[in-house]
Amino acid sequence: MKKITNDEAIALLQQIMRIKTVGKDESKVADILAAKMQPLVDAGLATMERLPYAPGRDNLIIVAGPKDAPTKLGIDGHMDVVAAGDPAKWSHAPFGAEIVDGTLFGRGATDMKAGLVAAFVALYNLLVSGTTLNSELHFFATVGEEVDNYGARQLAAAGYNAGLSGLIVCEPSGPQIEPTTRGIIDYTVTATGKAAHSSTPEDGANAIAGLFAYNAAAAVQTETLTSQVDPMLGHATHSITLINGGNQVNIIPETASLRGNIRTTPLADNAAFTAALEAAVTEASGKVPGVSLTLSIDSTLPSVGSPSDNRLVQTIQKVRTAQGLAEAPVVGGTGICDAALLLTPGMDMAEYGPGNDSSHQTDESIAIADFTQAIDSYEHIFAEY
Amino acid sequence: MKKITNDEAIALLQQIMRIKTVGKDESKVADILAAKMQPLVDAGLATMERLPYAPGRDNLIIVAGPKDAPTKLGIDGHMDVVAAGDPAKWSHAPFGAEIVDGTLFGRGATDMKAGLVAAFVALYNLLVSGTTLNSELHFFATVGEEVDNYGARQLAAAGYNAGLSGLIVCEPSGPQIEPTTRGIIDYTVTATGKAAHSSTPEDGANAIAGLFAYNAAAAVQTETLTSQVDPMLGHATHSITLINGGNQVNIIPETASLRGNIRTTPLADNAAFTAALEAAVTEASGKVPGVSLTLSIDSTLPSVGSPSDNRLVQTIQKVRTAQGLAEAPVVGGTGICDAALLLTPGMDMAEYGPGNDSSHQTDESIAIADFTQAIDSYEHIFAEY
Repeated sequence: MKKITNDEAIALLQQIMRIKTVGKDESKVADILAAKMQPLVDAGLATMERLPYAPGRDNLIIVAGPKDAPTKLGIDGHMDVVAAGDPAKWSHAPFGAEIVDGTLFGRGATDMKAGLVAAFVALYNLLVSGTTLNSELHFFATVGEEVDNYGARQLAAAGYNAGLSGLIVCEPSGPQIEPTTRGIIDYTVTATGKAAHSSTPEDGANAIAGLFAYNAAAAVQTETLTSQVDPMLGHATHSITLINGGNQVNIIPETASLRGNIRTTPLADNAAFTAALEAAVTEASGKVPGVSLTLSIDSTLPSVGSPSDNRLVQTIQKVRTAQGLAEAPVVGGTGICDAALLLTPGMDMAEYGPGNDSSHQTDESIAIADFTQAIDSYEHIFAEY
Repeated sequence: MKKITNDEAIALLQQIMRIKTVGKDESKVADILAAKMQPLVDAGLATMERLPYAPGRDNLIIVAGPKDAPTKLGIDGHMDVVAAGDPAKWSHAPFGAEIVDGTLFGRGATDMKAGLVAAFVALYNLLVSGTTLNSELHFFATVGEEVDNYGARQLAAAGYNAGLSGLIVCEPSGPQIEPTTRGIIDYTVTATGKAAHSSTPEDGANAIAGLFAYNAAAAVQTETLTSQVDPMLGHATHSITLINGGNQVNIIPETASLRGNIRTTPLADNAAFTAALEAAVTEASGKVPGVSLTLSIDSTLPSVGSPSDNRLVQTIQKVRTAQGLAEAPVVGGTGICDAALLLTPGMDMAEYGPGNDSSHQTDESIAIADFTQAIDSYEHIFAEY
């Protein structure tokens, strides 16, 4: 068996980018990776398992390396992508995986089929070449990360992350290493009042006015939280991102609702924000007679991370130095990734992967050199951790 | 020619209520009224004219009485109705005009086919009976009142209200007389910001936050206006009745808008409110960096009215006394009616008509006795004014 060449890796990435895994069909990606890995499994170099989440949506788990190693490294990448939006706005077909002047275009180029495939190829090449591994390697290709980390949630619930010493998430991190990420809360506030003709608003109770009162109360209640500055993650943030209420301009609205998104930190965590939102709803409920407000926490994931000098970060920096690269800045991650589910206390963490700032954008792309560099980096990181 | 009996009047009202004039087909009502009136026109007792607004939507104008009378009384009723909503929620077919135990059910029963037909029958009977009239009578059956007073707007623009001494609007007024009504402003505020991922709200500008800032500024700017108490009309009111913004919970919203409805009085008039809204938009525009706000006045109609002891009100009270009824309370009207377009300074005004508080509701209805009483009252009022 031979190592996968860079040209073959690029072709593999293109093949996988042409599969439209927008909230479905991750199994088609898993099929390709599994078929490639099968000869190594047959040779006793790895074990492989599929964990079905839904029809056509299998997580793929590959375990390799010394069973008796003192450390275990989790390697995570998701197979799904966000929607492409209007294809007419793209300069290149969103699922065409076209290469132009050294740049590969398409949905998932940066987020994160390049990181996924680079990690897979690195793992494959390490096993084929018989390189000595310091850790047992646990490769996770997950489903549904973009919606609510379905796959990672399932893997964590089933204990696939148990006993890992470190976790590298191959999400695009630019030229930086992220040992920690903010948490998230999505919530809904629903206001219920009483309809009336707008000529006699006193006969009704204006549900939109209830939301205005909530906003004012929430701004006060969350102020001590959003003002905290975490050394790695900066400020927690709170944004009201959706609002809807009323039926006709001449009817006092009976119902209205809004949704908010919070990014939490260890200093301003999910429990503290949830308590602040509850206090705001209680306070606002008394402000508009006849309007009642209810809070629903739709989704909550904690801020997770490990110290900025954890051993995985050190390993990455050492590999960069060996490759003649400058040490990468170590910063907090602003987004959510599978680590929110897979990381447990004491586990080393690094979000580190190829890509640029085109995630979720029209004409998402990745430089081919960035991708092939990542294969090489991952080979060294996976071997040395 | 004989007077229309109460039984015939009830049948005529039922026939007209069965025509579904929800923003269309008012001509079918005009056809029925015109056919009934035609013999009197042929006998030289009245002149009749149709003023087309749109295909199938004719206003009907009937003029009768002494050309040389010192006073002219306008008599107004609209032929359109609002939508019935879900027919399944009605106990009686909304356009069936069923009578049960002395109550007539259906859309338009109260608002305002009963008032329209009662005024028409009263006019017809006065002319047939050769009763002496103190004023020339100008009967207007209008289109599109429920949307934006289309017919009255057209009649006023064409001068049909020129020279009137008084105007009786046959809208349901309960057992009260309304010599004045509040004005109205409908407006839209649109906020434009910049989209960003909700993990980095500082890269965007939250349009919904712009609307929250507008609401706070508008509350302050309009406070001196909404606190004014008009002796007849009470407080002016300001309600935000529609709001919409955002696309996804994890995207900082680029656009958001709200609509508001204001009911004005002579003390807190349309110009003053418009200035306050403009000031609020200007103030709020500076509050959320990157968000710009614009105000659009969608519709504006002034508060109109005449003194509470005007001659038309006096005539109505005199007729009530003669009929053995108590004097009716004279109060300000909260809603908008065709008078907002047809009334000019110095004109006597009274909104006075049969009906209850079921306007625009499911199972709208009118007591038959209320309707027939109105025919009799109108005969006396039209003759004596």
